[in-house]
Order: sequence, then structure tokens, then C-alpha cells
Amino acid sequence: MVDTLTSPANPTLKAIRALHDKRHRRADGRFLAEGLRIVTEALDAGQVPEVLVFAEANAGHALVRRLVAATEGAGGQAIATTPAMLSRLTGKDNPQAVVGVFRATPTPLERLDAAAAPLWLVLQAIRDPGNLGTILRTGDAVGAGGVILLDDCCDPYGVEAVRASMGAVFTQGVTQAEGPAFFDWAKGRGSVAGAVLAGAVDYRDATYPRPTFLLLGNEQAGLPPDYAARCDARVKLPMRGRADSLNVAVAAGVLAYHVIAAQGDGQGAAAALG
Amino acid sequence: MVDTLTSPANPTLKAIRALHDKRHRRADGRFLAEGLRIVTEALDAGQVPEVLVFAEANAGHALVRRLVAATEGAGGQAIATTPAMLSRLTGKDNPQAVVGVFRATPTPLERLDAAAAPLWLVLQAIRDPGNLGTILRTGDAVGAGGVILLDDCCDPYGVEAVRASMGAVFTQGVTQAEGPAFFDWAKGRGSVAGAVLAGAVDYRDATYPRPTFLLLGNEQAGLPPDYAARCDARVKLPMRGRADSLNVAVAAGVLAYHVIAAQGDGQGAAAALG
Repeated sequence: MVDTLTSPANPTLKAIRALHDKRHRRADGRFLAEGLRIVTEALDAGQVPEVLVFAEANAGHALVRRLVAATEGAGGQAIATTPAMLSRLTGKDNPQAVVGVFRATPTPLERLDAAAAPLWLVLQAIRDPGNLGTILRTGDAVGAGGVILLDDCCDPYGVEAVRASMGAVFTQGVTQAEGPAFFDWAKGRGSVAGAVLAGAVDYRDATYPRPTFLLLGNEQAGLPPDYAARCDARVKLPMRGRADSLNVAVAAGVLAYHVIAAQGDGQGAAAALG
Repeated sequence: MVDTLTSPANPTLKAIRALHDKRHRRADGRFLAEGLRIVTEALDAGQVPEVLVFAEANAGHALVRRLVAATEGAGGQAIATTPAMLSRLTGKDNPQAVVGVFRATPTPLERLDAAAAPLWLVLQAIRDPGNLGTILRTGDAVGAGGVILLDDCCDPYGVEAVRASMGAVFTQGVTQAEGPAFFDWAKGRGSVAGAVLAGAVDYRDATYPRPTFLLLGNEQAGLPPDYAARCDARVKLPMRGRADSLNVAVAAGVLAYHVIAAQGDGQGAAAALG
């Protein structure tokens, strides 16, 4: 049964709105996805919202009806409300048709099966949620096992990261760990290839065993030297311009696509060179 | 001589603030770069601001003094002001140390020397200024000849694109053209490789003559079919996930790095395969 809730004082709506705040997300263990497209992508990836809020005027929309049915079928709550309340929930003047509340389910490092995928993306102290979401999206595209976040990264469950992920936050596993614990865990489980600017080999000259943990550091500072030192390979992208860096999500994409090619699908440098 | 201007009613300051608006930028032919880092990068790339605005309290800062000297040396105007006015100029609570006003100098298509570089990045109807700025940055990194913007792209001279470019807006040439005029111009001058999702070959199976024009379409719609039909090659990136797309700036980066490798620097698939 759909509830109709429209009062800003309603405790359920207040709790949903509070999920824009990282501390509330942490405490609550849930996060928001905003918009029909991304909530539908979540459902297609097998993730059903615990709560679905939609504009009452859209109740007849086929996609909305499907989401309502799925939410209620899984024991969740479907809430019809006003466009004004949806604007309030999202903080946007132009309200989305739906808002979904999902359970955040990061996988603890010790429960990751490293051998389950040939490539994992590992990010250290990434601060920009657009970059993080974009890298989740790339992880999905290359078939990565998931994204491992080291140290103080921005929140993968924030609205901006979720939006930039284009749904990949629902298909890519997310793990959060401290750097030293990651290196201890990775030892014997795979090869860590760190992207660095200095003291590195061209990325096409490195080898990428299965699984490879592709590690990229903070947007400004790059990888800490002691982390770079613990990597099995240190790789760099050639820089032909006046600047000396790439956007971290672009660097992750270039390296990730090279790794899956080099790991050998019958094409590319590694295959040709044996 | 440094002018000290602090009144919101001052016509020079009002004109600078108006450069946040795309129509004003178009009419005026100038644009803003905000922050000490990017204005310094502009100077290092040989671009001197026509007007430099800085917080009077920072007048003694070595980098600010260098910018003031360069601006005045080139006949420009240096303006000391208050932090409140800098906040007003940038629209940000946390004011930047400096704001530079630069001349926008797009290159007309007919004056581009296609043979001057092995690779050009061509974007069609790109809408996100962060994506556009990131692709300018990638263009700098791979040594592209410049970025050619087709049809109704977002403004490369907007503050967000300039910021995301990390200074590359000052090193990469920018050209704006209509799609059909671009294809007419490119014919006989180089090979157009369009990134598409359907009816394409794997990007590693294509050849990339010098120069290659690497063409990517709008974030949502991709390349229009009639544009794809006019490309010399249609290439796609493998997609192993549940989604069917990459962020356009990531796709541009993966393809651009592959092209420069394939064009032969002694490494990579093309070189190995002959």
C-alpha cells in the first residue's frame, strides 16, 4: 500500500532528507539515488529500494509503477508525495520523479575474493565525488571485481558520486580499508600496480598478472611514497604536454582498459608480444 | 600602476563579473580564470591576463607579484581589491587569491593546420563543462593539436570548464564549427575515427593514420547516425559490465592514449603487429 506523505515534519521524510549528510548516511547505513533512470538501473542490477518516494502525479507512469511494485514486493515502503516535497528531499529546484533509499553494503576487505576478477580498482584518498562515481562506472565497464577505497576517500554513497556512477554503485562492490591493511591483504593475493609520476615504467612496459590491483592516489598529492614503494609495479602514462597530469578518472580508465587488453583477450600489445 | 577598486558599482569590476555569463563572454571575447594556480599556469603557457584582480592583502605574495608584473608589462591592468569583492567576482564564499581576465582566441577551422599534430580531439554537442575541461586536459597530455567543438557544445571558456582543464585551455587550441563543415574540411586532411556503440570495430582493430581526428558525441545521445556514417572508422570500447557506456572524458582518454600508442612510438599493439 502506497503511503501519501507531504508534511516536511514527517519523520520518515526528515530521515530521508538527512541522508544528504555524510554522517547521517554513516550512522543510518542507507543512501539516496535520485531520478527515474538511476533507480531503475538499481532495480535492474537487483537492488530494490527500501523506500521509494515519487510524485503522486507520476503514479501512473509505467516505470514508476514497476518501481513501486518492486519496492512493495520486497517489503519496502512506497511513498507518494508532492513535487515540492521531492524538491525538498533532493535540494533541487527541478524535482526528480523519484527518490530511492538504498542499503549501503560495502564488502569488508577480509571477505573480498581477490581471484574472482582479473582487475580491481583501488583508490587512495580520492576527494572528488564526480571522479569516484566516474571510476565506479569505468569499473563496471571493464568488468572489475570492485572498487577498494583506501584511507580518507570521499563517500561513494553521496548523491554526486551515485549520480556520476550512472548506476555502477549498484553493480560494483565497494570496500573501504586503510592503506597498510590493504597492502598486507593484497600480498600473495595479486599484484599491485600503482600509478605514479616519477620513478616508474611506461604503463605499456609493465606486466599485469591476474588479478591486478590498479592503485591511483589523491587528485593533488598522488600516491604517498611509502605506498608507491609497496607496489609490485609502478607505472606512468606518457605526458606530452605542458601539464604533468591527467584527471584521475581518465588515468584510471586508460590504465584499466590497457590492463584488460594486456591480460590477454587475443588482442593488444601483451598478446602480440607474447 | 596597480589600481585599487573596491566598489561593486565600478564598471570594470561589473564587466568582469558579467563574464560568468556565456552571452557576455561571447560578446566581449574574454573569459575568466580563477585562482593562483591556474592563472600562473596560463602565464607559464604564455598567456598574460588582460586584467588581473587580486586581494590587496596578498600584494606581497611572490606569485601574485609575478602575475602583476607580467600583466602590467604586457599593457594589462592590475587591480587590488577586497576579499569581499573577489567573492563577489567569483560567486564563491571562499574567495580565490586572484582572478584573471583572458582573451578567448578560438582558431577558425579554415586556419587549422591538420598536419601539425598526429591527433586532434573532436567533440560533438558535449554538454558538461567538467567533461569538456577534462578532455582539454587530456588533449594537452597526449600532445593533441587541439580540440574541435562541433555543433552546440558547452562553452570551453566557462569557469567550470576552465577549472577542469587545469590550464589546458591555455595550451590546447580550441576551434568551433558545425559538423558538416568539419567533415568537408577533414576530407583529404586526415582520418576521422568516431566512437560509437553499435556497428563498430573494437578500437584496437582500427588503424589511426596521422593525423587522426578522434570524434566523440554527446553524453546522452552519442554521435548522430549521419555523422557516424561520414567517419572513416567507427570504433567502440569493449563493455564488460551491466551498463553500456563510459563517461565521455574517460572514453576520450582511453582512445586518445591508444591512438598515440598505435601511431607508433616503438611500443604497443600497432608497433608490435607492424
